Amino acid sequence: MDAAAIRAFAAEFDPQPFHLDEARARATFFQGLAASGWHTAALTMRMLVDGGMPVEGGLIGAGASLSWPRPVRPGDNLRVVCEVVAIQPSRSKPDRGIVTVESRTLNQDDEPVQIMTSQLLVFRRGRGPAA
Amino acid sequence: MDAAAIRAFAAEFDPQPFHLDEARARATFFQGLAASGWHTAALTMRMLVDGGMPVEGGLIGAGASLSWPRPVRPGDNLRVVCEVVAIQPSRSKPDRGIVTVESRTLNQDDEPVQIMTSQLLVFRRGRGPAA
Repeated sequence: MDAAAIRAFAAEFDPQPFHLDEARARATFFQGLAASGWHTAALTMRMLVDGGMPVEGGLIGAGASLSWPRPVRPGDNLRVVCEVVAIQPSRSKPDRGIVTVESRTLNQDDEPVQIMTSQLLVFRRGRGPAA
Repeated sequence: MDAAAIRAFAAEFDPQPFHLDEARARATFFQGLAASGWHTAALTMRMLVDGGMPVEGGLIGAGASLSWPRPVRPGDNLRVVCEVVAIQPSRSKPDRGIVTVESRTLNQDDEPVQIMTSQLLVFRRGRGPAA
């Protein structure tokens, strides 16, 4: 994550001083440039897609809960660790279910910058639409 | 929201066929091109920032829970309706609190495409850092 990427995302989606301008960010709560939490969320999604989680039909989110325990700073290197915590077959539709995944987005010091629990709509093997 | 914007966001952050390619999207769960939920979330943030919610120090999210009850399609016009549902002063830090906001992102038919409950870190008037 570099400062230019932080600013570019913010200019489009979250144009607040602490995401846009290093100098002005110093006087804010963040005390320096920080990435938008939505930028972290979007990058986390990219890592999950690239990571090739073996879900037929693709990664389809029904919902998610996120927290951002600390800011993402310019120069941070992020990675995602995730774990399936529940699989709930649908009662009404036997071809699908909801898989709950916990994802922790960590910086280079292994500190979480985002903790997310997401509900994915997943189809049984061979039963779902294409991805 | 137009198809080019849907594809551009997806190419960067959520490169799955149903967000990238109209023809391939038809065979998927979405049965046509649909925006990434993270794109909807990011656009919702932009609307909240532009809407000028009167929060000194800016809109600082501690966390959020989202659901995406229906897809966002090319040509959709989105707007956000939001409501403060709780204000919880901090017990340990008298200058701040957590404000819970419910935001509904609606399409042109007033159907919700995203329902979000977010926790904002808010400072008392005149007590917080700059925005």
